[in-house]
Amino acid sequence: MPRAVLLLSGGLDSTTLLAYAVNERFTVHAMTFRYGQRHVVELEAARQIAALYGVRDHVIVDIDLRTFGGSALTSDVAVPKDRVDDVGIPVTYVPARNTIFLSFALAWAEVLEAGDIFIGVNALDYSGYPDCRPQYIAAYERMANLATRGAVEGTNPIRIQTPLIDRSKAQIIQLGLSLGVDYALTKSCYDPDPSGAACGHCDACHLRLKGFAEAGAKDPARYV
Amino acid sequence: MPRAVLLLSGGLDSTTLLAYAVNERFTVHAMTFRYGQRHVVELEAARQIAALYGVRDHVIVDIDLRTFGGSALTSDVAVPKDRVDDVGIPVTYVPARNTIFLSFALAWAEVLEAGDIFIGVNALDYSGYPDCRPQYIAAYERMANLATRGAVEGTNPIRIQTPLIDRSKAQIIQLGLSLGVDYALTKSCYDPDPSGAACGHCDACHLRLKGFAEAGAKDPARYV
Repeated sequence: MPRAVLLLSGGLDSTTLLAYAVNERFTVHAMTFRYGQRHVVELEAARQIAALYGVRDHVIVDIDLRTFGGSALTSDVAVPKDRVDDVGIPVTYVPARNTIFLSFALAWAEVLEAGDIFIGVNALDYSGYPDCRPQYIAAYERMANLATRGAVEGTNPIRIQTPLIDRSKAQIIQLGLSLGVDYALTKSCYDPDPSGAACGHCDACHLRLKGFAEAGAKDPARYV
Repeated sequence: MPRAVLLLSGGLDSTTLLAYAVNERFTVHAMTFRYGQRHVVELEAARQIAALYGVRDHVIVDIDLRTFGGSALTSDVAVPKDRVDDVGIPVTYVPARNTIFLSFALAWAEVLEAGDIFIGVNALDYSGYPDCRPQYIAAYERMANLATRGAVEGTNPIRIQTPLIDRSKAQIIQLGLSLGVDYALTKSCYDPDPSGAACGHCDACHLRLKGFAEAGAKDPARYV
């Protein structure tokens, strides 16, 4: 079975991604980041989900993006609530986050000789983040194939796999439900309360609730 | 003065790079990594050199590449000594290291609104690392310009500056000497003794000593 490195946050998208990769018969090496995010409950969710799906191994990588500031997700800037659409890139954007995450995944893929890197980016319901777009992913893949020993020696070309990129949130949820995903385990909220209950009002909660409504399903997550 | 993020290891190349960027009138924000390398004396060298050149700020970022293994620089694999040429990519190669370093630099550049990222890669005397080649750097730059808020909004295009890429080690040393670099401060050895003295036999020492010889200068570094 081919090996893959999969970026697992413990959220709805990456959990669906994991169910998809396992269903496609990949041997999955899961990677999660503790990057100074306020919503650390997702780390515990990632652990449970990785165990549930029997991944080959699961590493939690410590990186401190707070060194640079610049995002409401990693600083004391307030997470916006119930914001209207079309206000450009929101303050919850973390600078170069996917580029950093993919770069660690690339290093691990090179050591494992894994040819596939799965990332649950989504260009449709994507909150306006530039590093979720197909043209970004294509450019990353091209760079990755010039960066590694396996590429230079021709033994391990790298594919960045983004099976969710063109799906709406509702379609992602439908895919996950068809694969038996238990969405009660997944965490999406940017600003959960201390018990881990979702706020219901940040961008991530809005997207999730809208997705479940459009999918004609009930969100089993716990809300405050 | 334009702002730049500069990757400073404390070695010969990145110190020459810093002297170059300062001479070109950039306001420099220096970034150094503690990445599990065995030759940690270079971190202290980086601190001294950053202070000497009066950089605007200097961050040391902790990342643990030992999570993945795969390199003699970050594991218990022996550093090769007095090896012959043309044996392919050596065991001192750290998987995706420059990709990870550039990705942190990109995040910081985005927060600072710095348009230039300086990295002291060299494609001539480069020890066979794939992520030191011009085609890799060009692909990274293209990806970076699709990754960031500044690129999407057109306010902060990113340039990856590699002024050393086409120079021989001797030419780099001549450039540095013309800019007044004190090479006694710089650390190159992959396997220094506990006092910080260079081994004189690893790839990095060989390249450095050969460079000084060809430049017609004496290496002021301390050797065992």
